Amino acid sequence: MDALKKLWLPLILVNFKTYLEGTGRKARGLAEIAQKVSDEVGVCIGLAPQYTDIAQIARIVSLPIFSQHIDHYVPGSFTGHILPEAIKETKAVGTLINHSERRLCISEIDATIRRVKDLGLISVVCTNNANVSASTAALNPDFIAIEPPELIGTGIPVSKAKPQIVTTTIKQVKKINPAITILCGAGISNGADVSAALKLGTNGVLVASGIVKAKRPYKTLMEFAQATTK
Amino acid sequence: MDALKKLWLPLILVNFKTYLEGTGRKARGLAEIAQKVSDEVGVCIGLAPQYTDIAQIARIVSLPIFSQHIDHYVPGSFTGHILPEAIKETKAVGTLINHSERRLCISEIDATIRRVKDLGLISVVCTNNANVSASTAALNPDFIAIEPPELIGTGIPVSKAKPQIVTTTIKQVKKINPAITILCGAGISNGADVSAALKLGTNGVLVASGIVKAKRPYKTLMEFAQATTK
Amino acid sequence: MDALKKLWLPLILVNFKTYLEGTGRKARGLAEIAQKVSDEVGVCIGLAPQYTDIAQIARIVSLPIFSQHIDHYVPGSFTGHILPEAIKETKAVGTLINHSERRLCISEIDATIRRVKDLGLISVVCTNNANVSASTAALNPDFIAIEPPELIGTGIPVSKAKPQIVTTTIKQVKKINPAITILCGAGISNGADVSAALKLGTNGVLVASGIVKAKRPYKTLMEFAQATTK
Amino acid sequence: MDALKKLWLPLILVNFKTYLEGTGRKARGLAEIAQKVSDEVGVCIGLAPQYTDIAQIARIVSLPIFSQHIDHYVPGSFTGHILPEAIKETKAVGTLINHSERRLCISEIDATIRRVKDLGLISVVCTNNANVSASTAALNPDFIAIEPPELIGTGIPVSKAKPQIVTTTIKQVKKINPAITILCGAGISNGADVSAALKLGTNGVLVASGIVKAKRPYKTLMEFAQATTK
Repeated sequence: MDALKKLWLPLILVNFKTYLEGTGRKARGLAEIAQKVSDEVGVCIGLAPQYTDIAQIARIVSLPIFSQHIDHYVPGSFTGHILPEAIKETKAVGTLINHSERRLCISEIDATIRRVKDLGLISVVCTNNANVSASTAALNPDFIAIEPPELIGTGIPVSKAKPQIVTTTIKQVKKINPAITILCGAGISNGADVSAALKLGTNGVLVASGIVKAKRPYKTLMEFAQATTK
Repeated sequence: MDALKKLWLPLILVNFKTYLEGTGRKARGLAEIAQKVSDEVGVCIGLAPQYTDIAQIARIVSLPIFSQHIDHYVPGSFTGHILPEAIKETKAVGTLINHSERRLCISEIDATIRRVKDLGLISVVCTNNANVSASTAALNPDFIAIEPPELIGTGIPVSKAKPQIVTTTIKQVKKINPAITILCGAGISNGADVSAALKLGTNGVLVASGIVKAKRPYKTLMEFAQATTK
Repeated sequence: MDALKKLWLPLILVNFKTYLEGTGRKARGLAEIAQKVSDEVGVCIGLAPQYTDIAQIARIVSLPIFSQHIDHYVPGSFTGHILPEAIKETKAVGTLINHSERRLCISEIDATIRRVKDLGLISVVCTNNANVSASTAALNPDFIAIEPPELIGTGIPVSKAKPQIVTTTIKQVKKINPAITILCGAGISNGADVSAALKLGTNGVLVASGIVKAKRPYKTLMEFAQATTK
Repeated sequence: MDALKKLWLPLILVNFKTYLEGTGRKARGLAEIAQKVSDEVGVCIGLAPQYTDIAQIARIVSLPIFSQHIDHYVPGSFTGHILPEAIKETKAVGTLINHSERRLCISEIDATIRRVKDLGLISVVCTNNANVSASTAALNPDFIAIEPPELIGTGIPVSKAKPQIVTTTIKQVKKINPAITILCGAGISNGADVSAALKLGTNGVLVASGIVKAKRPYKTLMEFAQATTK
């Protein structure tokens, strides 16, 4: 796991959310674009499509794929929920946990990280500020993605608008568990935002509309990828 | 839609829940068994697998497939949720709504039925008693599936243990909207339970562990199917 | 109960929400103003203060007092929840249920109405449109308060901006259960809005900021009260 | 605050839950018993009654009173929720947060602790295991009460059945923030359980049914109190 994680860094993780541009056939198109950019630049691009699209995308690309959420339940009577074993079988390698649009109780985050780890999946826990990041660090996820909710979808990049949230997060998280890899997200729209995020000490970015709703996703994703190599 | 619905009746609707026996490769195996039984007996069998499995199952069988849950959101920023357009694109024909393991607010059920209808999908709303069934009828879903939660997974069939819940549901629902098709579920384990359900006036059954966790699913499902033809 | 309900009509029901102007000492001040207006005009004014204030307000006024929410649980291990028996003992006479800021599952609304009825308390279920009102009618609450959420707190009165939502609600609810009393709310700010609501066929209004955050609550509430007598 | 906290230790904190024996008139009776025991033994007993009872209990006893839950909202449109300012005005001195029967998102716990601190109230965050306790410590509450949910209400005391959960919690919490005071709870039923809890290094216990549903609350509470003085 740890060796694998390193190979991925720096990581551009694209959350497809429930955008039409990231659904079904269009989701597969976007995945193919990401594969192309990844191959051309030699940078790792992770994809977090909707549950319904994971299996098919996993068959057409070799990029690491993440679920957008997962439940901690063991197999049983949980109609409509997201079974970790089901995600595992799609060939996804990990999952977002506690995204600001799908918040969890602290005891659920703890249980989910354990379940995910037991299955050999990677956990990427989203947090909203430095305090919550430190708190999450004590639960030992693989990744923490700090995303101030007030900047999500705004185009105002966290890496420029609130750099101190990112640097404080890094400092506090590392104090509690130095093995955790840190991404930042919210408002990341171009290569300069990505560069700024890396300069702050993160190992990559979590991005959604900036790529999925971009007019020319190939061009924008290429710009993101190249920014990570400078 | 209405003509299609009629063709399906009587309907055996199999909820795969998050059972291991209904996940991934095993879910596809179960879907193939259902196709075989449906072809042999000439009875409609609907399938409600997990989100991650819908698309692949839809490609290997010609049975009507339902999501286990759906959100009413329009495309946008709803990470980890179930977009109706995404379900539509998997080739599912409809969705369970408000299953006892995934309850919704009354205003959400209303919004979900509308969204689902706009996309040409079939709504199957689960209810827990006759009162809630009548209440749901006023929201005009295609199907209501009455399932007393205290019997779910017990093997004690609602059609025998609580027939009056089923008959009162039928009476009250029809008074409010006679176009709604009624299924019953909870504890349905063999052909006699299915026969009893139909004799009470339902148009089919919603079943989960009775089939998915059966020792010999082909044999049990065959028994269910044959019971609908008597 | 039914005789009591009639005595109250037309009803001005004031939801104190969690406004500072409706908290603690100020809540008691507002309750005294309501008592004064009620006495002077001979019109019933109901009050829905916060849980923490109910008991003290019940001791200083003789107006009917409602909880803002209630849980359907029976006495037991439900830390932090609202026990119907606790509300009963404060001398409140009833409760709001399913306010748009505190939505419930349909099966919870059903269970809550039953619990409340068993204790001799009055149920006032809030709904967001005519469909959901009809659906709620099948659960047989005492009152339905129709409040389009998009107008709540705007000062744009439902009784003028969306009269058809109110009249359709009345028609559909009465068809299912003519014994239910109907209030409307959202944006009600002055006497003319109250008059308009009554002319549409309601038996009163549910109001919050229009009174609680009014610059001169006595004057505004007096205007509301007088409007009901014309 | 810190001086005050010290005066209270060791603390016996009694959660009244929504037991009938802890509601209304009976809640006040129980509060008077607690006052008597506290006065006689010279030990601090905290009380966490239902919202509806806080104000009246605060007037008849001089013990520290806690809410069972609180919301982090600022004054506004949050019908049916628990405004910190409203709790403050009842004369409660603090609140339970994240009880296992009222779980919160991690970002809500963070926001709630801040709100509570800003108002000069004491935060007592409940946790379910050592990991979640460590995680909570990073959010800097005043108290952490570790309660393994599987033991709550069983009469099997955490301090004897799972001492290592308590000691690991203390160790991990102190490493992150040594200023946090630690209680333990679940299954605490007699003086020996209280002694065991203190010997493990806690500063007191969180108890519910053990006192509230005791046949002779005065006798049992007296036993608890005396156990803290040995």
